[in-house]
Amino acid sequence: MRQSKLFFRTQKEYPKDETSLNARFLIRANFIDKLMAGVYSLLPLGLRVAEKIKKIIREEMNKLPSEELFMPALHPREIWEKTGRWQSMAEVMYQFKDHSRRDLGLGPTHEEIITAIAKKIIFSYKDLPLAVYQIQTKFRDEPRARSGLLRGREFTMKDLYSFHSDQNSLDEYYERAQKAYTAVFKRCGLKTWITEASGGYFSKYSHEFMVELPNGEDEIFLCRLCGFSRNQEIAKFKKDELCPKCRKGVLEKVKAIEVGNIFRLGTRFSEPVGLFYKDQKGKSQPVIMGCYGLGIERTMATIVEVHNDERGIVWPQAVAPFDVHLLLIGESKKTLRAFSEKVYQGLAKASLEVLYDDREGVSAGEKFTDADLIGIPWRLVVSEKTLLNRKVELKKRNEKKTELLTFEQIIKKILPAGRQEKA
Amino acid sequence: MRQSKLFFRTQKEYPKDETSLNARFLIRANFIDKLMAGVYSLLPLGLRVAEKIKKIIREEMNKLPSEELFMPALHPREIWEKTGRWQSMAEVMYQFKDHSRRDLGLGPTHEEIITAIAKKIIFSYKDLPLAVYQIQTKFRDEPRARSGLLRGREFTMKDLYSFHSDQNSLDEYYERAQKAYTAVFKRCGLKTWITEASGGYFSKYSHEFMVELPNGEDEIFLCRLCGFSRNQEIAKFKKDELCPKCRKGVLEKVKAIEVGNIFRLGTRFSEPVGLFYKDQKGKSQPVIMGCYGLGIERTMATIVEVHNDERGIVWPQAVAPFDVHLLLIGESKKTLRAFSEKVYQGLAKASLEVLYDDREGVSAGEKFTDADLIGIPWRLVVSEKTLLNRKVELKKRNEKKTELLTFEQIIKKILPAGRQEKA
Repeated sequence: MRQSKLFFRTQKEYPKDETSLNARFLIRANFIDKLMAGVYSLLPLGLRVAEKIKKIIREEMNKLPSEELFMPALHPREIWEKTGRWQSMAEVMYQFKDHSRRDLGLGPTHEEIITAIAKKIIFSYKDLPLAVYQIQTKFRDEPRARSGLLRGREFTMKDLYSFHSDQNSLDEYYERAQKAYTAVFKRCGLKTWITEASGGYFSKYSHEFMVELPNGEDEIFLCRLCGFSRNQEIAKFKKDELCPKCRKGVLEKVKAIEVGNIFRLGTRFSEPVGLFYKDQKGKSQPVIMGCYGLGIERTMATIVEVHNDERGIVWPQAVAPFDVHLLLIGESKKTLRAFSEKVYQGLAKASLEVLYDDREGVSAGEKFTDADLIGIPWRLVVSEKTLLNRKVELKKRNEKKTELLTFEQIIKKILPAGRQEKA
Repeated sequence: MRQSKLFFRTQKEYPKDETSLNARFLIRANFIDKLMAGVYSLLPLGLRVAEKIKKIIREEMNKLPSEELFMPALHPREIWEKTGRWQSMAEVMYQFKDHSRRDLGLGPTHEEIITAIAKKIIFSYKDLPLAVYQIQTKFRDEPRARSGLLRGREFTMKDLYSFHSDQNSLDEYYERAQKAYTAVFKRCGLKTWITEASGGYFSKYSHEFMVELPNGEDEIFLCRLCGFSRNQEIAKFKKDELCPKCRKGVLEKVKAIEVGNIFRLGTRFSEPVGLFYKDQKGKSQPVIMGCYGLGIERTMATIVEVHNDERGIVWPQAVAPFDVHLLLIGESKKTLRAFSEKVYQGLAKASLEVLYDDREGVSAGEKFTDADLIGIPWRLVVSEKTLLNRKVELKKRNEKKTELLTFEQIIKKILPAGRQEKA
């Protein structure tokens, strides 16, 4: 895409009302725009990143298997009364009356809704197990929305719900979900610790997917040797204690940010909402459920918090808004422009996603600064110097060295391995 | 996909609380689920249809060109005050206070928000024209939510906004948007009349995209000869009057449903929100805007209203949840099952999207009834009768005749022309 034609402009300054690194970079680089505390728009570049994250999530969720659906945000009070959560979640739920004085709430989560839908689909043990997920907007009236996209009042969440006839089936699915989550985050460039946290309804522990981060909101204990990890909220470890799991590693206490969490819900929702199935003996039993949450913007923000340097974001290729950033330096020269256009077309033909900085009247320095801020993994420069040899300068965002290469050499170098054949 | 493993079950009865044809079919066929009046979930089959409609929209909008972004639903009162619409739209807007007593509204539309964002991106005539769109959830407190998905309180809308330095540029874009809209609806199986309606802010007329429908909410005059059409709300035509445009055709008054609308906004929003640009002489001018709306669920519902018979929905292939419905009749026979599995795998290999009714203990009659209700364009039956010749029975949903064909013949017949080579 031609940068000159994009609905896009890097901002001159960091936003004054944001302290978090992710919001400062994402706003200045024009990936997002702040409407009010905790509420942001995803601008074209930000949406591109979000869509790449969603695509990875969908691939891994569909494999589990589970199916995608889409539930509404506007909920009637009655369904939340059944589980007692109209009251118990009132602090974080936007609750209001419509013009006919009916009580409505904006869904901070969807256990009640999905359970009510499942009642119309699940009747017998033969219908189980089943699992569904959605990627949908959630609303939470956070008293202090802060940390940029890490804690929003409105945000996109992937929430998966699984339905089982027995504990074994839930446990088996739960374990597969753990692996799928680990895979999602790994593909997004995030190393996660599966951290034991308070269990909630049905089991000793739930599990949080934690990314180590110096300015994370959570504190966790972890053993780098065996991967054991427990949230300090429920842990009573001393400093330098031996890992209770492997008995070899030493526990460290580190700051971290939670990007996903999974719960065994058991019958917490199926019983009050009335989701029962007939077992093999024809006896009515409550369906056993699990739920599995993953925040899209939060994942995006965490990627930024982990992958950056003093000049801007350093996107991992799988979630970068574009594969390549092509910079034309000296756009007023006709021959240069023609060569650059050829490179641009060639990259696009090789199915690479290219952001092409063809802007006129913008200095080389500004283009380089913007490219570093935006953080696309590969930077290509076409200038008078490179044109001399009909070559292009290549630089990785996270490396210092530059190389002068022919177009063919560049394609070979930057096309992701899986796409080499196609080109 | 195997029907036996889907989060899916056709309902035994038509819903008692719905009178509209679209809701009756879509709920019974389990494409959607009703949470409350005007608020529905898209179940896996419904979401598949919605995603196909969105894909068509994205293709046509990107070509215009325009870029996709995503704005929030939660809006602060202040921005709506600037245009006076906090009051003037209060009747359809959900307005409430958060826990800190701040006034919030749920966005019924996004002119205010996009204009405020554009202020940070558009500064000069060189930045224009630009256009952006989103596919996002809207909320409207409809006093009487009715007609199923045709008039929801929460629904998905594609809203596009264009920005121009002069009227000519707007007019030119507006005309291209008209063509893009016509193309979207045509690809969705809908013939639309571009109908003149009240102009609103900046021009004599806005334009509505109307689909003729005996139980439509609107009444329009139209000339079948030249395509002229005007909403009766603003028209004063007599019965059988000559078309004012071509002067040859005779005007008919028909009922219709609006699936899209486009407006020249002019400076209605740019002036109060403060979106100005510097013209070639360095003078500050308000940006001229257009907006272009299209409802996703409404389009889906209209397709159902148009394409159906007494037995169920008849999806046009481009928006069908699947290309093919494969029915195995007599699933207990091992040889039959093996043959059927082979057909299923073969269809999937040819990149066809197959719903495979492999359910056990379900009668042939029930499978046929369900297939008609769901309305996938091609039905394939594998049964003892067809196995005799190692053939499969093929039937189009909208035709009566059945044919016994080999697998190769079937592929040739049902694979959309554009995909023949790939297979």
